[in-house]
Amino acid sequence: VTAGEAAPLDPVRWRDGALRLIDQRRLPGELAYLECRTVDAVAEAIRNLAVRGAPAIGVAAAYGVLLGAETAARAGKDPMPAAREAARVLAATRPTAVNLFAGLARMEAALDAGSARGLLDHLRREADRLLEEDLLTGRRIAEHGLGVLPAGEPLRVLTHCNAGGLATGGWGTALAPLYAAHRSGRRLEVFANETRPLWQGARLTAWELSRAGIPVTVLVDGAASLLLARGRVDVVIVGADRVARNGDTANKIGTLGVALAARHAGVPFYVAAPLSTFDPRAPDGASIPIEERAEAEVLGSQAPPGVRAWNPAFDVTPAGLIRGWITEVGVLRPPFPLPGTGTTPAPDPVD
Amino acid sequence: VTAGEAAPLDPVRWRDGALRLIDQRRLPGELAYLECRTVDAVAEAIRNLAVRGAPAIGVAAAYGVLLGAETAARAGKDPMPAAREAARVLAATRPTAVNLFAGLARMEAALDAGSARGLLDHLRREADRLLEEDLLTGRRIAEHGLGVLPAGEPLRVLTHCNAGGLATGGWGTALAPLYAAHRSGRRLEVFANETRPLWQGARLTAWELSRAGIPVTVLVDGAASLLLARGRVDVVIVGADRVARNGDTANKIGTLGVALAARHAGVPFYVAAPLSTFDPRAPDGASIPIEERAEAEVLGSQAPPGVRAWNPAFDVTPAGLIRGWITEVGVLRPPFPLPGTGTTPAPDPVD
Repeated sequence: VTAGEAAPLDPVRWRDGALRLIDQRRLPGELAYLECRTVDAVAEAIRNLAVRGAPAIGVAAAYGVLLGAETAARAGKDPMPAAREAARVLAATRPTAVNLFAGLARMEAALDAGSARGLLDHLRREADRLLEEDLLTGRRIAEHGLGVLPAGEPLRVLTHCNAGGLATGGWGTALAPLYAAHRSGRRLEVFANETRPLWQGARLTAWELSRAGIPVTVLVDGAASLLLARGRVDVVIVGADRVARNGDTANKIGTLGVALAARHAGVPFYVAAPLSTFDPRAPDGASIPIEERAEAEVLGSQAPPGVRAWNPAFDVTPAGLIRGWITEVGVLRPPFPLPGTGTTPAPDPVD
Repeated sequence: VTAGEAAPLDPVRWRDGALRLIDQRRLPGELAYLECRTVDAVAEAIRNLAVRGAPAIGVAAAYGVLLGAETAARAGKDPMPAAREAARVLAATRPTAVNLFAGLARMEAALDAGSARGLLDHLRREADRLLEEDLLTGRRIAEHGLGVLPAGEPLRVLTHCNAGGLATGGWGTALAPLYAAHRSGRRLEVFANETRPLWQGARLTAWELSRAGIPVTVLVDGAASLLLARGRVDVVIVGADRVARNGDTANKIGTLGVALAARHAGVPFYVAAPLSTFDPRAPDGASIPIEERAEAEVLGSQAPPGVRAWNPAFDVTPAGLIRGWITEVGVLRPPFPLPGTGTTPAPDPVD
């Protein structure tokens, strides 16, 4: 994995004065790009899940602020208040996506530091930097992840949901080490849980891996325990929505069950996530709020009318079930090198 | 639960000279009955899943043999060979359903013992007896199950797939104790895993419980671990497809994950099944074959073309994760009182 190596995917890019997104709603049916030329178009793409995955949303929002400033400048208006208004609009799209606020905070800091003169170039550079940092983080996660993949061919990996290139600037988190291993010529077999209720595994993980030429097999979430118990998995890697200080990890609903089954089968279970996913304010999993989503996502057309559903969007896997956290600074164990935890990130030996 | 008490459902009944089935394919949309007046109609209903659930299939097949004999007699033909031919046709419908063969074996024994004279009455009595035995077994499972339900109201129960009235003559296995508890006035809250890939929980368990007035909440299979970990379940009860001599239990795919999560959460996990589900020839779970079904059931319209799926129909839960086996002769632990295992069923104190 070298610094100049192209990412497997380009879900969020600046092209010809517009933000170009892979429209994830149309996957796996077709690979279609959505061109956003206004703040409202970006906000709508985030809201309607054309772009999803916390890191991808953060980068998209940053370019949205740039679009707000550019639109104002073209109309002969002051780009500074327009950029601030864009940040306000974009912040209201997905209230729980941490990387969204991080991306907007970076752009607002750039606004504070800049002047009207040269503002557009300044904002463009900051948004580009956010994307480049995300791609660098993905490459580093790939590199560190390679170090913990078990020996043997084909390497049989189980994952849950989509923590792939689509969810980020292009490398992904859980899937980044798999792309790197595949490019180095190693034979892989990836098992993707379909990930009810929104099918991110069956739709997105299956699509992006098979597109890269990596063999992928989809299974219902309930079949993961048997797959593990039958000795058909060498390692489990998943992404994360939030990691508490003690290592308890919130991720897509169903992850806890996979971790329990991996422990039962004696298979190592890793979480791959950038340090921005680690929350120094959350001491443990009990302090991570569980978002509950609409019942209709579960009930669909299957259940009889009048029946209720319980639809938590993610669960919390206790730190004790996790072998290691694959980050851009190495494979960590608690205590993590985070601001306010008395430790600082070690210099990164990769790249 | 008294001997004369009506079962919650009537999925398989003999009415006006025909076999009347609840058409489970049309649930939960509507409660429609299918009238089978020929062997071929019964065979087709079993094949196309209009009737499903091993005990229900066994009873349906028995009446199918009766229909074969009656059709021949009405046409002035010998009913004896027609009944034997019916048994042959019905045996080919679902090759792995154990109760199908048990039901047909009972009818063939009745043929062997009978004569052409009075044959139709003889067959009718044997099929009725099979249904009555199934209903009695369900009532006894209900009674024994009541004895192990934890105290407290509402009693919060988690189940997987459909081991309800629909899958049997009318009482069910895992759901039988819940019907009995509800009728005795106890408040219940049942959580039903949706049960991918065929949605038996969301479609059938949700339907039959809500019809009986028992509050039911559907969740994706991947959410069961979180539900248990958050202390929201008092007891787990599931059915079984086959129980080995050491107690290892095959049941619908996803059951193993529920059992592991129940252990993690310290929640008791019970299997409810008639003794006919216990296989004295299977020493342990490793000797139970795992049926793998069509990939299309998993891939549906979600996954991209060319992607493979792994679709095991059931998994095996190790005996060590199971608190007890609720049967018609009591709540058992291995060694079970089975033919060929050196023990015999104890006299039943219930009814």
